[in-house]
Amino acid sequence: MKKTLLASLLLAALPTLAAPGDAERIVARATDNTRAYDTLSYLTDNIGARLSGSKSADLAVKWATQQFKQWGIDVRTEPVMVPHWVRGIETGSLVSHNNQKIVLTALGGSVATPAEGITAELIEVNNYDELKALGKEKIKGKIVVYNNPMNLELVRNGRAFEAYSEAVEYRGRGASRAAELGAVASLIRSVASASLRTVHTGAMRYDDKFPKIPAAAMTVEDSLLVHRLLGKGEKVRMHLVLTPKTLPDVQSANVIAEIQGTEKPEEIVLVGGHLDSWDLGTGAIDDGSGVAMVMETMRLIKELGLKPKRTIRGVLFMNEENGLRGGRAYFAAHKGDKHVAAIETDAGAAAPTGFLTSLKGDALSALETKAKVLDRVGAAKFQFTPETGADTSFLVEAGVPGYGFVPDARHYFDYHHTPADTLDKIDPKELAQDTAAVAGLTWVLADE
Amino acid sequence: MKKTLLASLLLAALPTLAAPGDAERIVARATDNTRAYDTLSYLTDNIGARLSGSKSADLAVKWATQQFKQWGIDVRTEPVMVPHWVRGIETGSLVSHNNQKIVLTALGGSVATPAEGITAELIEVNNYDELKALGKEKIKGKIVVYNNPMNLELVRNGRAFEAYSEAVEYRGRGASRAAELGAVASLIRSVASASLRTVHTGAMRYDDKFPKIPAAAMTVEDSLLVHRLLGKGEKVRMHLVLTPKTLPDVQSANVIAEIQGTEKPEEIVLVGGHLDSWDLGTGAIDDGSGVAMVMETMRLIKELGLKPKRTIRGVLFMNEENGLRGGRAYFAAHKGDKHVAAIETDAGAAAPTGFLTSLKGDALSALETKAKVLDRVGAAKFQFTPETGADTSFLVEAGVPGYGFVPDARHYFDYHHTPADTLDKIDPKELAQDTAAVAGLTWVLADE
Repeated sequence: MKKTLLASLLLAALPTLAAPGDAERIVARATDNTRAYDTLSYLTDNIGARLSGSKSADLAVKWATQQFKQWGIDVRTEPVMVPHWVRGIETGSLVSHNNQKIVLTALGGSVATPAEGITAELIEVNNYDELKALGKEKIKGKIVVYNNPMNLELVRNGRAFEAYSEAVEYRGRGASRAAELGAVASLIRSVASASLRTVHTGAMRYDDKFPKIPAAAMTVEDSLLVHRLLGKGEKVRMHLVLTPKTLPDVQSANVIAEIQGTEKPEEIVLVGGHLDSWDLGTGAIDDGSGVAMVMETMRLIKELGLKPKRTIRGVLFMNEENGLRGGRAYFAAHKGDKHVAAIETDAGAAAPTGFLTSLKGDALSALETKAKVLDRVGAAKFQFTPETGADTSFLVEAGVPGYGFVPDARHYFDYHHTPADTLDKIDPKELAQDTAAVAGLTWVLADE
Repeated sequence: MKKTLLASLLLAALPTLAAPGDAERIVARATDNTRAYDTLSYLTDNIGARLSGSKSADLAVKWATQQFKQWGIDVRTEPVMVPHWVRGIETGSLVSHNNQKIVLTALGGSVATPAEGITAELIEVNNYDELKALGKEKIKGKIVVYNNPMNLELVRNGRAFEAYSEAVEYRGRGASRAAELGAVASLIRSVASASLRTVHTGAMRYDDKFPKIPAAAMTVEDSLLVHRLLGKGEKVRMHLVLTPKTLPDVQSANVIAEIQGTEKPEEIVLVGGHLDSWDLGTGAIDDGSGVAMVMETMRLIKELGLKPKRTIRGVLFMNEENGLRGGRAYFAAHKGDKHVAAIETDAGAAAPTGFLTSLKGDALSALETKAKVLDRVGAAKFQFTPETGADTSFLVEAGVPGYGFVPDARHYFDYHHTPADTLDKIDPKELAQDTAAVAGLTWVLADE
């Protein structure tokens, strides 16, 4: 370790090395001597949860801007109007079963029940086909319960995001599909790969054609309880109180930091994560760690005194979680800019495994060759996918090559969108390796 | 499997087999054809949490009594006056740190804060020595935070109860020790071997010499947050609201079922678990599973038409969790009875590993020989300890041989005293094996 440190110090003292050396310096420095964890620690421990529209989200914007300034990096904010949804009371109990408590949480964007709540019979379906088959007669006046377990076999096999996509369909659209048939509320099973009676929230959206009904996620345990009681043929009635509010939109901002390119300043390599988080945890894995990787990428390049050929633009997007307004606003303002790459990191901070990319064929092969430097942290593996991130999806759809950082996802959905998304879930060494991967790729693409 | 079933059916049709065969029949039947899971399922899913003094605890007494009657087993209730502590609002926030939410739960028996809560600075100590060293000057007016992590190394090495005993000291007596030096409230780290922002409650008790101050357990995550902030040298102030109430004692009951002995009816083999649970979960592992093992032991012996030489007494104790009043009341009423064994099962329902016993030397060796039948379910291992259970501790101290059932404890404290203590944590096959172990030992001791 001492040897490595010495080497880093020597390298730091020689800012005139050839380009391949610079990428190696960045990767080495990020791995061995990063401040990413300190940055993340302030964001999560001192600021905490930062749902769009909240005072904390505003604090996060101010703090991040201030940090970049302090590091001597050009920074600006660009306005974004964001939704302002506020969680309220959320309680459930089985009035048919000794008033057993049901642990649940409102889905982001849900409307409220009346203040005194609603009481209705539960009816469970495995999918939309079953819902449709039951029809209006059976669904009307009831609370629809989607039995949407996450496929844990997929999670174990490194395909966690696939399992998530499957299960999350009912979180997004389940309420309106149920409302279409006269349901009075909609419940899902928390989209989770682990649970200790743990609620997982997340965004839902209404189809304007149908009445808006309240929507919540029960914990895995509570969903199983309901499933077992219904399975015994018992009539199950729930009293449900949800009092979230949708307040008027609030002006917030994307935070945009830039290190000007020396040779092709008009060509932009974007590296981004999102500054907002859900309100239940402190958004350490989603996406405080991504924010820390982006901020540390910029800080390291500045600290090492490196001058990239292309402009590196670090973007902290606002409102990825419940609106994607930051991503949209950025695209609206900057679609004319000459982006040559859009790197996004929004998948946590476990050990690095590589990147998703929208590149194919020869371009993909060329990328593998030029990004060999990422081998040091096990991140030199690239896999094609058309979608490499949410905030950058508009750019990538418009033809900008996309790159999505992929850490080991096996435990991501244990914590994602839950109260347990907190700093202790992150290993500082892994975060350093992740930062090395993101900073390394950023440099390679900016300086090639 | 079919062969085993056939064997069981044949055995069931032959109730005149010799005594050693009876123990084998019981073990086989309990393993292959138990109703323990159904019993547990009703208790946890249909009745739910059953803290002493609650309506649900009363329901559980009535239901268990009714079940025994339905199975044709002699049953009676014996009155026990129990505490009636009711949880209220419980919220914490760091007013010094952007009002970050602190997830915590009142410890059982805690007094309330004023309705509007208290706000005070946090001061952390690793043990009583540090507390004492800080003294009145530093402690007065503050909220004492005990940094009492559970030793997970011990948990992994099969010594979970030892790790629990160490950490739980601060739950029991920490508040009074802090109050002695002028603290205004006392917080511990949840005594937990796993956490997803999970609160673990449990009993605390006041020393009447000192003021009663509110006491709560933070989740592991929240304790770590406080620890990190204090570690950075920051001043941390918390707003704490706890509104539990201690209502007047309530009359409840132990449920006592009996199968009369044929040769020595005055000699009693007691097999017991506790019917009450904490209020956060549904008490599946603590101690619904023990209750199910005891009830199924009685039901199986009755169903198989077996007549033990000694009387078998199944006892469902009330109020093990926050008073041990049931255990005390039983001892007061029955210390004159000729107990030859006191078997207790109150350690969950994972795979069986054996029993603790108060027997030593030759008596322990003899036990190992006569209980060989438990080998079938891996439970023929006995280990000496002076304390084999809580409810039966009074009997065992008075000289009755004690036996404590020991399932694999590696995950017990992941769920114990938390909202996650629910039926899904129990594998029906393991519960069947556990029941076989408890029923088998009961029979061996009653019929030898």
